[in-house]
Amino acid sequence: MKVLVAIDSMKGSLTSRQANEIVQKVFEKYGHKVSPIAIADGGEGTLDALIGNSEEKLIKGTIHNLKNEKISAVLGWKEESKTAILESAAASGIQFIDFTNHTHPKNTSSYGTGELIRVALDLGAKRIIVGLGGTGTVDGGIGLAAALGVDFFDEAGQKVQHLSGKKLREIQSYSLENMDTRILDTELIAVSDVNNFLLGETGSVKMFGRQKGISVDELEEYEEWMKHYAAAVLYQKFSPEKGDGAAGGIGAALRIFFNAKLCPGFKFIAKETDLERKISEADLVITGEGKMDNQSLHGKVPVGISFLAKKYQIPTIAFVGSFEGKTEEFIEAGIQVVIPIVDTITTFPKALKQASNNLERAAQRTAQLLSLFTTHK
Amino acid sequence: MKVLVAIDSMKGSLTSRQANEIVQKVFEKYGHKVSPIAIADGGEGTLDALIGNSEEKLIKGTIHNLKNEKISAVLGWKEESKTAILESAAASGIQFIDFTNHTHPKNTSSYGTGELIRVALDLGAKRIIVGLGGTGTVDGGIGLAAALGVDFFDEAGQKVQHLSGKKLREIQSYSLENMDTRILDTELIAVSDVNNFLLGETGSVKMFGRQKGISVDELEEYEEWMKHYAAAVLYQKFSPEKGDGAAGGIGAALRIFFNAKLCPGFKFIAKETDLERKISEADLVITGEGKMDNQSLHGKVPVGISFLAKKYQIPTIAFVGSFEGKTEEFIEAGIQVVIPIVDTITTFPKALKQASNNLERAAQRTAQLLSLFTTHK
Repeated sequence: MKVLVAIDSMKGSLTSRQANEIVQKVFEKYGHKVSPIAIADGGEGTLDALIGNSEEKLIKGTIHNLKNEKISAVLGWKEESKTAILESAAASGIQFIDFTNHTHPKNTSSYGTGELIRVALDLGAKRIIVGLGGTGTVDGGIGLAAALGVDFFDEAGQKVQHLSGKKLREIQSYSLENMDTRILDTELIAVSDVNNFLLGETGSVKMFGRQKGISVDELEEYEEWMKHYAAAVLYQKFSPEKGDGAAGGIGAALRIFFNAKLCPGFKFIAKETDLERKISEADLVITGEGKMDNQSLHGKVPVGISFLAKKYQIPTIAFVGSFEGKTEEFIEAGIQVVIPIVDTITTFPKALKQASNNLERAAQRTAQLLSLFTTHK
Repeated sequence: MKVLVAIDSMKGSLTSRQANEIVQKVFEKYGHKVSPIAIADGGEGTLDALIGNSEEKLIKGTIHNLKNEKISAVLGWKEESKTAILESAAASGIQFIDFTNHTHPKNTSSYGTGELIRVALDLGAKRIIVGLGGTGTVDGGIGLAAALGVDFFDEAGQKVQHLSGKKLREIQSYSLENMDTRILDTELIAVSDVNNFLLGETGSVKMFGRQKGISVDELEEYEEWMKHYAAAVLYQKFSPEKGDGAAGGIGAALRIFFNAKLCPGFKFIAKETDLERKISEADLVITGEGKMDNQSLHGKVPVGISFLAKKYQIPTIAFVGSFEGKTEEFIEAGIQVVIPIVDTITTFPKALKQASNNLERAAQRTAQLLSLFTTHK
């Protein structure tokens, strides 16, 4: 059979590519022709999903992370199309947060993501794709903007220095005079798995602030800062849009200062990787994710894939770390069988550690079952 | 497809019949023709495996359990062939043990199992099948023998009363003068999943005594009692045989006093239920058990079934509570896929409680997977 394997990352255990490889090996043993496609939704794994073929390469740049430490970060580079692919998380990622005052969003900045875009511009990028997932900052993208030459001024007309979340309240105006104009000749695409507005109950502060370290008590005040900045700068000439709230407001900054196009991550990556055509040519589609539940039915990667497969009536199964949901609803969504990979009495930490073995065994059982009555094409 | 379902009991959670029914329901939903066969190895579930068809019935008798309490116990009755099926565990089962002195094997007796045989004789049985698994006594079968009229005497020629394990040391001779002679006209078959000798390191005392409450310190002395009784009574005219050690020596007593035939449980039950023919006519065989491991390869029920299936090249899968073993060895033994039914983070007690739901989900996934590419015959 022609088997297409496109499993989303299993958070804390396997990347999309790793999961795919495990299943690929098993199914190849059973004589199937397997095509793995690393997949992502704009968050973790976006770079991995869009890069990794032969002629593409990874390039390192020295930048600053959200707490202003110098680090080396990686971006993907496709020479032929002069395309750079980077993740805001590489510079401004939640992995740098330790929930001290030092990494509190009011004191951190997305400056490093701007620097990473500059690395891409230095390479001569004509197209830059920025994955917005997993960011740990809530600075409305002012750090990023500043790294690309946008200046912000306070009430007294003084340039605001040392930009970070708490500086949002001081900003009264901005200027593009010193902007790195190379970016205007570049197609800039921001991909994200969220399509939230910048402000409000489901916005960058109130919806995503807590997981980045903003306490419940601080939310209202922080929202006021963001509102102030939005009114003074972002929404002076532009209307709010969905996606502005991605990555603590980087979405809005990329769109408004640099004319970026905001795209839903999965759709964009599916298109870039020619996923639909590849699915349509498969006999079996294998997808999966760490936790499959009711949320999965609303726009997560595996169901995105199964909808495509359903369109072409390609049977689809999903390997998952855990499953909570109604089987029928997933069948309706095109996933005929959801196969949890846990197969023994275990704890959650152990299951995470054992994920690759568990997935291998689940794939083995599945391939074996399918081989019982199927003559391979 | 024609699916034969013969799953062994999953100790502590599902009987063979219950497990079969769960899988049957699921596979029937997928359009398969399912034949369930309750199965056992001479232990728990033997009665259930041999009875349960339309014209057969269950009959209650009042007897004594191993601690001499009056209880109601059940035997199976096939009128047409005048066959009675009973389990020694119904009277002398380990479930009556509470690890106090009162239920210590030295103080308990297999008398009730003899009474249950008498109930069968009263029904006019021409054939009696006794399942020997799960017994909690270690009395060399003297209780059982006494219930059927065998008398035991001490050194002084006095009849030994109140028979129990500790009386073994007092017995010097026996007499069949008062024996219930009806049993001599009856075909008596003892079925067991063990084929151990009565004495020695792998015998009824040293191998099985501890789980019945004999402490390590007592083993040597208890073994001496059993040796004394064996020399004075059992092996005066007969040679030791495998199976004598079953059910704390009931195996030996049935064979030597009453001319019973000792049969390996699974083989006997397979023959009685016409299992081999039914397997040969199936397209798929589904078996299973609670714990599948290396031991399973050496004479346990599912592998007994898979060997038969292998002979006819019928694909075989097993649903198991837990699996520890090498997949290849089980494939070699004819089980193509071992499917653990646990599919989530859980504890052992919860898994036992959830066994029926877990099995149902596992069956559902399997039936669904098999349906993806199989056209039903």
